[in-house]
Amino acid sequence: MKRVNVAIMGLGVVGGGTYDILTGNHDHIKRTQGVDIRVKKVLDRDRERVLGRGVPESAFTDSIDELAADKDIDIVVETMGGVEPAKTFIIRMLQSGKSVVTANKELISKYWYALEPVAKANGVGLYFEASCVGGVPIIRTLTESMQANRVCELYGIINGTTNYILTKMTEDGSSYEAALREAQQLGYAEFNPTADVDGFDAMYKLSILSSLAFHTTVPYGNIYREGITRITAEDIKSARDLGYVIKLLAIGRRENDRVEARVHPTFVPVDHPLAGVRGSFNAVWLTGDYVDDIMLYGRGAGARPTGSAIVSDVVFCAKRKTHEYTDFGIAEKADSHIEFATDFSSKYYLAVTACDRAGVLAAVTKILGECGVSIRNILQKGGEGEYAPVTFLTHTAKEKSVMTALEKIDKLESVRSIDSCIRCL
Amino acid sequence: MKRVNVAIMGLGVVGGGTYDILTGNHDHIKRTQGVDIRVKKVLDRDRERVLGRGVPESAFTDSIDELAADKDIDIVVETMGGVEPAKTFIIRMLQSGKSVVTANKELISKYWYALEPVAKANGVGLYFEASCVGGVPIIRTLTESMQANRVCELYGIINGTTNYILTKMTEDGSSYEAALREAQQLGYAEFNPTADVDGFDAMYKLSILSSLAFHTTVPYGNIYREGITRITAEDIKSARDLGYVIKLLAIGRRENDRVEARVHPTFVPVDHPLAGVRGSFNAVWLTGDYVDDIMLYGRGAGARPTGSAIVSDVVFCAKRKTHEYTDFGIAEKADSHIEFATDFSSKYYLAVTACDRAGVLAAVTKILGECGVSIRNILQKGGEGEYAPVTFLTHTAKEKSVMTALEKIDKLESVRSIDSCIRCL
Repeated sequence: MKRVNVAIMGLGVVGGGTYDILTGNHDHIKRTQGVDIRVKKVLDRDRERVLGRGVPESAFTDSIDELAADKDIDIVVETMGGVEPAKTFIIRMLQSGKSVVTANKELISKYWYALEPVAKANGVGLYFEASCVGGVPIIRTLTESMQANRVCELYGIINGTTNYILTKMTEDGSSYEAALREAQQLGYAEFNPTADVDGFDAMYKLSILSSLAFHTTVPYGNIYREGITRITAEDIKSARDLGYVIKLLAIGRRENDRVEARVHPTFVPVDHPLAGVRGSFNAVWLTGDYVDDIMLYGRGAGARPTGSAIVSDVVFCAKRKTHEYTDFGIAEKADSHIEFATDFSSKYYLAVTACDRAGVLAAVTKILGECGVSIRNILQKGGEGEYAPVTFLTHTAKEKSVMTALEKIDKLESVRSIDSCIRCL
Repeated sequence: MKRVNVAIMGLGVVGGGTYDILTGNHDHIKRTQGVDIRVKKVLDRDRERVLGRGVPESAFTDSIDELAADKDIDIVVETMGGVEPAKTFIIRMLQSGKSVVTANKELISKYWYALEPVAKANGVGLYFEASCVGGVPIIRTLTESMQANRVCELYGIINGTTNYILTKMTEDGSSYEAALREAQQLGYAEFNPTADVDGFDAMYKLSILSSLAFHTTVPYGNIYREGITRITAEDIKSARDLGYVIKLLAIGRRENDRVEARVHPTFVPVDHPLAGVRGSFNAVWLTGDYVDDIMLYGRGAGARPTGSAIVSDVVFCAKRKTHEYTDFGIAEKADSHIEFATDFSSKYYLAVTACDRAGVLAAVTKILGECGVSIRNILQKGGEGEYAPVTFLTHTAKEKSVMTALEKIDKLESVRSIDSCIRCL
């Protein structure tokens, strides 16, 4: 039986989960996959943490040189997170002839173009199923199950923290601040929640997923990004009244050589399967020209689901004699013949607070009409005193037209504030 | 670039869809997958049908001998359906050194054990992603993404016809007969609907999926099977009143060496993601010991989604130098150390029509109690005349206990009929 030695770099939450699976399900994997996978080394700065998890002392190392020199190590799992030193270590491992399995979405999103050529030159593999959507096998599905299709659309709820917060706001009527605090207390959100709530995490993942789905480099810098920090309890309530729930969606589209990639809060119709993805669960919805719609749903984070994705990559890698690389040649910048749409089309939810008097609604709708934004629903609610909130749902309109209209509306003396502008699915 | 020649046996709906993809997306597949796949031959009895679909005359054949003798053909797609002559033809192709990709669930379920050894002996592959759940990549997920896990549970809505009928009954209040008629008119159900409505189709698929999920042979003969023909509009309504929808579920469970496999109508809680799988859509819900819950959702049938799965297998096969076979060695009969549970546990929905007088309910509940079936909800509805319908939801109970109780209840002089016994998720 083939024997494969693995090293794990970084025994934090996900690295620990990976270690638990490789040891706990070692015999099961050996019996069902025909490969005997051993954890030979664990690299970490913190010796006590490693020994405390039950790793034998002989397996511990804090020296990357030792790993690089160890000819017996076939596959290295990187679960350190962050760009450095993960990047330097991964390049070193690839150059030492070891395949690498990583869960590092930021690193892959930013430096995939630099890592893949090193892997290719050394004839080893670079695998990162765990970098996107935890235990959900979205990358394997894109690469090994969608080959017959041109994928034209991809919608993802791919950040567990924001989905937890938005679900809490929807189901318990919490404010954003209260829901965030609760997510932090439960360990779903970091003390500094920026990476999640401002959409960076989803942006990195969308860059990886849409590159694979559309067979072209989608740099994260070409992705429109907006987080959930401005979503109010009032937005959530309005959404519900109109038959929607608010989700932070990552959206990718390709039509011929035009690519659209964006991350922002989105009104999702309640009867859409993505609307039912609650709490820390994640899902990705894909449309291919032949397969039509498919959705993959599961746990988007956590030691065990993410560890499951890592070990799946380890097994997948261990059983191969040769490795594959992107067909399009991942690059630092987008391919010159690809046009990235900045003026995309969408339906919109708009909320303004305006004087509660005759003629004001006419002035607002006139501007929308002049900008080519057609309205499908207006709701004027009872206000307090002289101002009243008014909400609009628009038909599909151009982003720039909507922004121009909002600028003009904002200048109306009778409009106190523009409260929300949220795109709709 | 690697060039691969394909033959298609049977140019019906799914074979035609496969032909359309291999020709229509030929250049896309060549560019993105690095393999040039040509349809060299199409075998069919009906020459006119084949030429009518745009297949060049030179590619048409009605001779299996010609295919077998053609050394240029690498992969044969079987889309004839049914057991014979598909089985004989597939064996012939495997023996001629050609890998086979099939969409034939009945054949794989019944004769996988006979086909795999032939493939193995000839060093070729046998692929059947398209045999289960159309375009949903459930087989690839089980084999290439769940390797880290012991899969302990699998719940599937894996028959589009019955899901269409049940959705119609739920959403439009149709009777079973009316919904079936509509499904037949739309081409979702056959003139003779037995294979679908009596659960045979789901049973074949469950046999394949649970064998792969549990790494042991699950013969279709060991699967409990009950169709949807006895589901009434009244059952659908009761389900809704109690917070459920009725779905035909395929259920597989493995715990140590005990396997449970069954197909039957099931009360699914409305807030469960499977409850939202409507119409001809399908989904499979899996639980693994590390990945936790995942769900795959998509189109379970149709020329294009099923064709997508076939072409995915063709590409997957074309890019491999060696092929894999089941780790457990699929066999005709279940492994002797596996115990198949016949007395499984479930929650139950029971409906009886009983005399509307004091003491009757006490007699029924006494029998349930004596049989160890504990009740969590009783609903007595206003009846007509002397009889009234009574429904029960039970806590988890043993199948045999419930059956024993129902037999005794049926004998009560005050009970007119036992109307329904439906298991609950």
